[in-house]
This record gives sequence, C-alpha cells and structure tokens, in this order.
Amino acid sequence: MKNHIETMTQHTDNSQYSIALAAHPVAELRTLAREMAANGHFVLTYHQIGSTLVLSIHQQTSTQGHSMTHTTPIRAVVWGENRHEQVHAIVRENYPDGMHETIAGGLRELLGEDVDVSTHTLDEPEHGLSEDVLQNTDVLLWWGHMAHEEVSDEVVDRIARHVNEGMGIIVLHSGHHSKIFRRLMGTTCSLRWRNASERELVWTVNPRHPISEGVPQPIVIPEDEMYGEYFDIPEPDELVFISSFAGGEVFRSGVTYRRGFGRVFYFSPGDQDYPVYHHPDVQRVIANATRWARPDKPREPYTVTLMYRPGEFDGGWLWTPDGLVHPVTGEPAPALASAVEAAQEN
Amino acid sequence: MKNHIETMTQHTDNSQYSIALAAHPVAELRTLAREMAANGHFVLTYHQIGSTLVLSIHQQTSTQGHSMTHTTPIRAVVWGENRHEQVHAIVRENYPDGMHETIAGGLRELLGEDVDVSTHTLDEPEHGLSEDVLQNTDVLLWWGHMAHEEVSDEVVDRIARHVNEGMGIIVLHSGHHSKIFRRLMGTTCSLRWRNASERELVWTVNPRHPISEGVPQPIVIPEDEMYGEYFDIPEPDELVFISSFAGGEVFRSGVTYRRGFGRVFYFSPGDQDYPVYHHPDVQRVIANATRWARPDKPREPYTVTLMYRPGEFDGGWLWTPDGLVHPVTGEPAPALASAVEAAQEN
Amino acid sequence: MKNHIETMTQHTDNSQYSIALAAHPVAELRTLAREMAANGHFVLTYHQIGSTLVLSIHQQTSTQGHSMTHTTPIRAVVWGENRHEQVHAIVRENYPDGMHETIAGGLRELLGEDVDVSTHTLDEPEHGLSEDVLQNTDVLLWWGHMAHEEVSDEVVDRIARHVNEGMGIIVLHSGHHSKIFRRLMGTTCSLRWRNASERELVWTVNPRHPISEGVPQPIVIPEDEMYGEYFDIPEPDELVFISSFAGGEVFRSGVTYRRGFGRVFYFSPGDQDYPVYHHPDVQRVIANATRWARPDKPREPYTVTLMYRPGEFDGGWLWTPDGLVHPVTGEPAPALASAVEAAQEN
Amino acid sequence: MKNHIETMTQHTDNSQYSIALAAHPVAELRTLAREMAANGHFVLTYHQIGSTLVLSIHQQTSTQGHSMTHTTPIRAVVWGENRHEQVHAIVRENYPDGMHETIAGGLRELLGEDVDVSTHTLDEPEHGLSEDVLQNTDVLLWWGHMAHEEVSDEVVDRIARHVNEGMGIIVLHSGHHSKIFRRLMGTTCSLRWRNASERELVWTVNPRHPISEGVPQPIVIPEDEMYGEYFDIPEPDELVFISSFAGGEVFRSGVTYRRGFGRVFYFSPGDQDYPVYHHPDVQRVIANATRWARPDKPREPYTVTLMYRPGEFDGGWLWTPDGLVHPVTGEPAPALASAVEAAQEN
Repeated sequence: MKNHIETMTQHTDNSQYSIALAAHPVAELRTLAREMAANGHFVLTYHQIGSTLVLSIHQQTSTQGHSMTHTTPIRAVVWGENRHEQVHAIVRENYPDGMHETIAGGLRELLGEDVDVSTHTLDEPEHGLSEDVLQNTDVLLWWGHMAHEEVSDEVVDRIARHVNEGMGIIVLHSGHHSKIFRRLMGTTCSLRWRNASERELVWTVNPRHPISEGVPQPIVIPEDEMYGEYFDIPEPDELVFISSFAGGEVFRSGVTYRRGFGRVFYFSPGDQDYPVYHHPDVQRVIANATRWARPDKPREPYTVTLMYRPGEFDGGWLWTPDGLVHPVTGEPAPALASAVEAAQEN
Repeated sequence: MKNHIETMTQHTDNSQYSIALAAHPVAELRTLAREMAANGHFVLTYHQIGSTLVLSIHQQTSTQGHSMTHTTPIRAVVWGENRHEQVHAIVRENYPDGMHETIAGGLRELLGEDVDVSTHTLDEPEHGLSEDVLQNTDVLLWWGHMAHEEVSDEVVDRIARHVNEGMGIIVLHSGHHSKIFRRLMGTTCSLRWRNASERELVWTVNPRHPISEGVPQPIVIPEDEMYGEYFDIPEPDELVFISSFAGGEVFRSGVTYRRGFGRVFYFSPGDQDYPVYHHPDVQRVIANATRWARPDKPREPYTVTLMYRPGEFDGGWLWTPDGLVHPVTGEPAPALASAVEAAQEN
Repeated sequence: MKNHIETMTQHTDNSQYSIALAAHPVAELRTLAREMAANGHFVLTYHQIGSTLVLSIHQQTSTQGHSMTHTTPIRAVVWGENRHEQVHAIVRENYPDGMHETIAGGLRELLGEDVDVSTHTLDEPEHGLSEDVLQNTDVLLWWGHMAHEEVSDEVVDRIARHVNEGMGIIVLHSGHHSKIFRRLMGTTCSLRWRNASERELVWTVNPRHPISEGVPQPIVIPEDEMYGEYFDIPEPDELVFISSFAGGEVFRSGVTYRRGFGRVFYFSPGDQDYPVYHHPDVQRVIANATRWARPDKPREPYTVTLMYRPGEFDGGWLWTPDGLVHPVTGEPAPALASAVEAAQEN
Repeated sequence: MKNHIETMTQHTDNSQYSIALAAHPVAELRTLAREMAANGHFVLTYHQIGSTLVLSIHQQTSTQGHSMTHTTPIRAVVWGENRHEQVHAIVRENYPDGMHETIAGGLRELLGEDVDVSTHTLDEPEHGLSEDVLQNTDVLLWWGHMAHEEVSDEVVDRIARHVNEGMGIIVLHSGHHSKIFRRLMGTTCSLRWRNASERELVWTVNPRHPISEGVPQPIVIPEDEMYGEYFDIPEPDELVFISSFAGGEVFRSGVTYRRGFGRVFYFSPGDQDYPVYHHPDVQRVIANATRWARPDKPREPYTVTLMYRPGEFDGGWLWTPDGLVHPVTGEPAPALASAVEAAQEN
C-alpha cells in the first residue's frame, strides 16, 4: 500500500486525512482497512463523489468517555410569573411564598443533593433570565398565566435558542398559552377549560417512561381546574399521561417533545386556585421530569447550515462570498487535498 | 319520566337541553336513554360535576353530510421567491418562466381539472399573499432561498394562522430555512449541504402513504444538491422518504406534520441549479402531496381558549371581566338551566 | 457519447440497462442525463459500488396511472363471533339478527353504493374466511369475545398475511384480546374493565383525521362497558379518540397502526350488552374507518428477502444454493452486464 | 365531618378505603380533602359511578423510593446462534470464540462493573433460555441467521412474555428475520440485501438519544453487508440511525419500540462475514442500548384483563364463573363497602 501513497494531508481538526494515490489499490485498501479496524484505533474508508475518489482515515472514538451518569447537580430554574400571588388572596393562602417557591421546594425535597434550584420571576430585569443565567441552566420550569404578553420577545427568543441548543424545559398548566410554549410548538395551544373545583384523575399510559416512575395509577387530585380536548398541540413524541375530570372531559396532560437538542415536557395539573403543587404525586412527576429533561451534553449551537466538502464528514465550512471559512475561527478552508484532483484525473 | 320533569330549557344553539327534575329517576332515565338511542335521533345523557347533576339531550349527527370526496378543484398557490431567476443564468436556463411556473405546470399536468393553480412571488405587494388570497387557498407551495429575511413577519404570521386553521402547506428544498417553516417547526431546521452535482436517490420507507403513490423505488435524480443529517426538525408525524447522495450522506427528504388543523409536508429535492422540478417523479410527489394536504373542512379558528360550563360539551363561552359571552356574537351567556340548581339542592 | 458505448444490455424486466463504456465520459454523461431528464421519459444514472462503475437508464413512471379515486365499491367483510347472540337474551334483544348484521347494516346505510358488505361467523367452515374470501376482501371488521380460543391458528396466520399484504382490518371492542389483534400488536393487549352501564364520552384528539370526520365532540354513548388504561398496546401510529367513563377511567379508544402494507384500526366502543352498534356516531366512525383502511394498491407479498445486485434497484433475486433465481419464475438470473466487468477492470 | 361517617372499611390491600356517610357533606368533604392534601400523606376523593357515590382515601406514594439510579449490574445475556462459526472459515477467522463472545466482550470492556454478561447458544437445552435464565435476565441480545426455524416456538413464546413483562431485548442484524423479532413486530420484517463488501455509513438522526451517545457522525464501517429499504417493520417509536451503503441504498438501521413493559432495539450493522462486532463504535452503540433497554422495575405480568369495581382504581379482580376473586390469592372479593350501597339508596 505504502508505495501507492504520494501525499497524506490532514485537512481538518477532526482527525480526518486525505490521501493522494499513485495507483489503483482497491484490493490493498480493503486489506488495510480490515487490519486497521481489527486494531480498533483507526478506520480507513474510501468512497466516490461524482467523479472523484476520496480516501480518509477516521480516528475512532472508543476512548472518549461516556457515562449517562451525572456527577454534578441538575441546575434547575423555576420561573414564576408571580402576579396572582400579589392580587388574589386564595393564591397567597395556598402559596404564601409564591407558586415558584412551592415548586422549587418540591424539587429540593425529592431530588436532594441531585439538584441545585433557583427561582426567578417576571418583574426582575430581563425577567431574571439573562444570557448568563440561561447559560447556567440545565432545566427551566415555567409557570405563567395572566401576564403572558408582558414577557419580552427578546427573552422568548433567548429561551428558544437555549432549548434548541440543549436546555430542558418543563411548561406547567396555564403556560400552555405562554409565548415560549407556542413558539416551540408552532400551534395555538388552545384548549377548553372550566374552573369548578373538579376532581382530576391523571392516568399513566406509558408505564415505563421515567416521568411516570413512582406515581399511583391514577394520580388523584381532589380539586383542579378542568383542561379539555381538543388541545391544539403537535402530535407528541410521547404521550405519558391522560387526565379525566369529574365533568367527563379528557386531556393529554403529560406530553414530551424534542426541539433541537432540548427536551420539552408539558404537564397540565396545577392551577393557582388549588394547592396542586403541594400534592406529593404532582411533585414527583415534576421531579422525574426535571431529571429526564436534563441535557446529557454541553450546550451546542446548530443554527448555521454548514457546507461539507466531498469526503468531509466531520467539521464543515461556512460559505461566504469570500469563500469557505471555518465557522468558529473564520480562517479560510484549506484546499481539498490532492487526492481529489488525482482521483478526478484517474 | 315525564312527571319528574319540572322544566326543560334550551341553553345553547347546539341542540343541548337541561332538564330540571322533581325526583330521582335514574332507572327511568336509563330506560328513556335506551329508547332514544334506539330510535337513532337523540341521545339523552346524565352525569355529575362536583355535586351537580346535569341532564342533557344531544341531537345526533348522522344526518349531517360527510363524504371525503371533493367535487371542487384544489385551490393551489405556488409561491416562488423568483430571485435566482433574475441573477443566475443557469437558473434561467433550467426555468425560463421561473421555478414557480415549472412547479405550477407540473401540478396542472398531473392533476388536470382537479386543481386550480396560481402563482405569486416575493416582489408583489404583500408578497402576493394577502388575507384575501390565503382565505381562498387550499394548499400553499413554498420555494425560497436567497431572500428569506425579506419576507415580512406580518405575512409569515398570516400564513401560520391559516395553516393552524386548516390550510395545507408544502415546503420545498431550501425553504427549510424559511421563516414560515421555522415558525411551524420551532427548531433551527439546519442541516449539512454540498452543491456538487451528485446523484440523489429518494427511497420510500412508507410504501402505502398517499404521497408515495406511483413513484419508483427509488426515485433517481441524476444531479442535485446534497442535504444531509443531522436535519434539525421535530420528530416527523410520518417519515415518507429518505434520500442518499453519491457522497454517502442521508437525509429525511419527505416528512409530514400536522400543525393545528393544517397539514404540512416538507420535500427536499430541488435546487435552483438543476432541472429537478422537471423530473416526472418529483412532479408526481408534489402533486400527491397537494392532494394530501388539501383540507377536508372549511377554515376554522381555534385561537381562543373557551370556557365550557358543567355539562356543556358543544359551544363554549368567552370569559371576560363582564362575565361569559358568546365568542362570535358577544351576547352574554344565559344562566345555567335550573336542573343544575335543582341537582345542587338535591 | 455514443462512441464511448461498447455494448448496451437489458438485464432485467424492469427497464434497466447496463452500458459498457470505452472511455471516461463523466462530463458527457452529465450532459446526456440532463437531456434525457428534460425530455421526461428516461433518466440515465451512474454510480459506483465497491470498485465497480454501473450505468443505467430508468424508464420513468409518470405515464403510469395514479388516482387515489376509487371507482369500485369497497369489499368489506364483517366477521362476528355470533355466540352471545345464541345464549344471552339481552344480546338477542339488542341485535336480533346478530351483532355482525347490525354492523354490516350501518356500513350499507352510510356508505351506500361505495361498499359491498358480506358477513361471516365463527361456526362456518374455516370461520368463513377461506383464502378465496380473503383474497377478495378489502377491509375485514372483527367482533369476537367469548370464543377467541376457538379461532384456528391457521386462519389467524392467513389473516395476518393478508393484512401484511395490504388488506385493511378494523378490530372492535372485545376483539382487543383476539388472536389476530395480539398477533399484529405483539403485546398482551390487556386492559382494565367494568360492566356497569356507564356513560362513555368519546373525545376526538385528532380533529382532521378522516376517521373522526362528521362526529360530534364528544360522541356521547349513554351506556357502555368501561375499558380503562393501562391498555397494553404498542405506541399507536395515530391517536384519534380518547374515551372517559362515568367512573373516571380513560381509554385510548381509537388508534391506528400500519402493519406491512395493511392499515389497522382499533375502536373500543361496543359491548354486546348495549345497543352501541345502533348508535349513529359509532356507525359513522366505523364507516369512516372502513373507507380509510381500504388498500390503494393490489395485494402484494413482501415475505421474501430478495438480493439486489450492484446497481439493480428494481427487481431482485432469490438467493438459492443453486444461485440467484427470479423470485416468481424461478429462472436463473442473467450474468451482470459487461459494464460491470468493464468498470471493474477500469 | 366525623359525625357523618357511619362506617369506614378498607377493602383492598392498596390503601383504599370506602366510607359510608350519614349525610350529604360535599362542602365538608372539600374542606377535608384540602386539609389532607396539604399535609401530604393522604388524599380523599369522592366521585360517582352510575347512581352510586363512592368515597375513598388514597395513601400517597411520595415516601416510596424512586431513583433511576441503578446500583446493581445489568444482567445481560448474549444469545448466539453459533452455526456459521462451525462451518465457515471466514467467520471463525473474524470471531475465533464465536460472535456471541465478541459481542459479550465488547459489553464487558465498555460497561465494566455495570454489567454482568453471560452467553448462551442454540444447541444448549432450551437454547440456554430456560424460564430460570430469563427470570434473571435484564437485557437479552440476539444474533441468529441460518437456523431461525430451529428455535422452538415454546422458547419464543417465553421470550415474548418476558419482554412484555419488562425484559429488554436487542436484536442484531440478521435477527430481523428471527421468530422472536417477527413475533414482537407483527410484520414480515423483510428487506433488500446484498453481500458485496460495501462501506456502510451509520448516521445519527436523533442526536440526544442515549443510544447515540459518544459515536461519531457518521459511524464508518469499511465493509458490511447491505440491508436496504423498504424494511417491513411497524413505524418505530424512535428512529435513531439511518445507514447508507456505497451502492446508494438506505436503511433505518437503529430503531426503538416498546412492547408491553419491555424496551426493544433493533440495530442492523453486523454480518458474520465482516469484523463488524470488533468495531469500537458498533460496540459503543450496543453498550448504550444495553443500558437503555434495562428495565427500571421488577418483572410484572399484565396478561390478565382485570375487573375494577366502581371507585376501585388500585387492585382489580379476576372475573370467574364463581364470582370475583383476587388474581393472585384466588380469594373471593369482599363485598363493596357499605358506602356504595348507601349511595345507591340515596
């Protein structure tokens, strides 16, 4: 093989090489590839694009760590609109410290050292959700109702970007009509409702989903607001819970989605007029969902559509009027290795 | 039974009645309900909400028409950005009348009298997509690329609203990055790409889907731009096509979604630099999708979350500071029929 | 181009050709492919497999008919176990001619000339479902309960094969535990139940699905048996209906699946003890589902895994100890055309 | 409240009680329920079924442990057909100890102390998969090819039952045509194929799925057998990987399903003729999938459809000719608590 290689050029950071060949060594390549795969560190591949033959060596990834076991606490932020608490006595009575603090307290009690919870509210600057705060948030929990329109579009854009880059988000109850949930869904998210102190039963229909772990069948909520179908959401990725109400209505009350690299869970129980967030099973679901929504990888942007040249699977280039440049450094892309031209002449 | 009824009140337009009872006629109600169901025109039901017993008669719907057979042509609008055609000779050569006219011509040829096609472009007032035009559009087809940012947000809002209310939309190729597609998806819709005159094979993975009818396995497109994974879209409702490219990349090239009452299809083949929209199988897919995306019902808004009082399944009321009002006429809701109070005293 | 072609061989029935080349005409091939695509009848493609270059011409399919409009009636078979009718007075009272005849009558009334309905029952030879009968069935509707185990495994195998080849099947109520439904699902299909004359409300959660057309929100069934979650089925392809019961249970009462080329719909309302199949909305759902489940194409087996040689996308060969043979005729596969060998030497 | 209660009876093991009332204390019940929910240990609920009022107290579950963190090793069983190894030199050369031992070795290397791996093969009694072995298996990995028909139906039934009860199963490559996979899918599981030493690229299309963690985009397998679409499987719950082959075919190469309480993963790379199971990225996927498929709860049968009486959400009874009995002990169900009769008389 060696005597067929004229030049060997590393042309990206990603351990990929192009090889210029002096002859037609397909049989030898096959032998070499088999040997390299057997030793488990490199894989040599060859393929054709248009009339061009491209050869490359991939560095294998088996040495890179992978665990699915998190050793640091989940950084959870409970966001509360905190308006009903100011104006309605019944809400203050149910939630003396604000609904967000009750929700945060449930997380702390159930997840203990596995979670690091903070709270923010609408009336803080940037609603408490600055770029810096979101950069350091693994899972955002959202409760809002009477002031959806007061949430600034800039903050909504920011949250949506972080979800797309990997942050988890849990939207609760009346958050179905929040700007951020409608942004992520692309639908009206409307529903039917009635506030009549009705018993809600929350039935698990996906009994091995991690979000339904440890709750009874059904969860019994003695009094809650009714939310009913048709609930105008996209088809859920997973349907975890269906609720019924004393009046006979049903509701898809626990649904999951993936949006970009981020996980989304909507959970409907929980009106400001009832002590629903003190309910131990409701707290369990929210704690389970917080674990589930946590990202497994660092935040990662995927906003730019990159060009990948023939044979380049790793990396990718930003296409500009001045030519291809590295998407982070802005440096111009090196010429494709001579293997390509060699193969084209072949 | 009759002697138990004290009053009988019609309290909505929707053929629902409440009945005030003088006694506890559960057994008699059961008998009566059975008789009414047997005669096939009315169904009497009884149920409880909180401590309230509600009785109602539903007028049955079996006489209302239902066909799934459309007798009028599909009103299709092909929207083209129409910019590349002005500046790039190769595009003018492939599409002398503009890409939108080629796409429209394919629909006319394949669907004949079943379709009524018009075209609109970016540079028209309101991009040719006024409220009046969209009100009269069953399916909108979208091709854009170099001028996504020039599409006004107001028009994008309008299109999204019409999709949610039932209009079908088919987004083609570089439309993956259009404002309207990203709005409906809630993700970046980014991907990897390369423009290198590569063969694209479009494989059907859902062989009985109406959109894949009548195309070969695979569709062979001799030259196209490469679009590759990871394609940052939500999980499709249905995956119809997967493409491979000569360079080895794959792409989910035909995916469906429902957004509100509207059907959405994204189909990736078709760059401005290649005569892809002249390809008979590509035209077939687009014609199939136009049939599939057509709404079965009139446009219907579902933007407002209505309140439904106990036992009211049809209709619903707008909740205002001045009380419940009819969502269209604005008239105040009548009091709940006396059955409710009667039952509450029970 | 022409002077580069040495031989041109048709090597399958499927309008595919291989071309032996005398030179390296990639640029000319590109020109030729573009011309052929423009004339809309053939597409010439070239690609490489291993070290082999394969060239082929595909005959385009645009002339082949495609309509999605059926002009012949749906051939529906309603299968009834017909045992309860023999032994229980209440069932005879509700269904004097047998449940299957009531279901068949609903189809005839609602679909009229669009359907050709026959009925078969357990006690007929082969349960009335001979190979000949199934060959001529578009949609099979199944009601069984007390005698699931009496259905022969041979007939179950036969039905499953026909579903996989394209026949639609609608499984009703207690058919959830039938051999055929469990065969198609791969799960226990168990559920919770109670027979207590309860009101069932059937809510539409997919308002533009053809199966939910023309029914009220909700369908009100005054008395029915309760079926409750957890219902042990695979994740549905589409969730159309969710029911609630007076006792508070919920149930995924209308779900769709695709199994092979056949469409499957399970619909839970309908116990033998209640006149549910006389209910006009229930009849409407069953009629809608019968339209929806109808196959769009002739029955097609896909039981054998065929080998496709390099560049052969259409057709495929049966691999036998004696070599590759045609899967239907059994004739040996012709040698790969000389283009392949030519390219291999290249 | 207390003075309204006449009797209070525990009528199942599941911490549910019925209460007979002497009066109509709805308002008081509401107050009491709110108090009990606030103290977080019990929830009292009231609801009606038919004409019956049922009251019950649910013991809350928040004290029951829940972790999602496993402290014992995964008990994995790699099942190998182990026939090719006996008759084909190339297979013995790639896999001197048998394919199952290579697969097992990869798990041991990557999961270390988190896994306890054993292997079994076709020629053992009961194929090595006795009831006792399966009872002690968390995840079963399956590789078979030339002897699918020799696997006994009894063992297939047993495996399917264990999957439905919670055991994970990972089916590899030619296992697509195994009896157990077809049993779980309900389809033919057929595909197109070619054995021509082709490069396979495995592209991740679900980048945050735990099964795709730590593998490059794409995984490059220098030589493998081609598996191509249409692959006749049900719609996957999740599509994780799509492969392309040098010949241009594509394949849904990594798909997940849930069947009952068990998780199923099919992964197509890996023919006996190539050293694919030595490939570090392939080993990584199989290790990830083994973690993912592990059950979170003890094995649980759900084969019997139980009856739940009014207001009984926990527990359930076996309906027999001799009346309702406990599904495990066989003891007769106690009479419904007097609350029910009291309410019925009401």
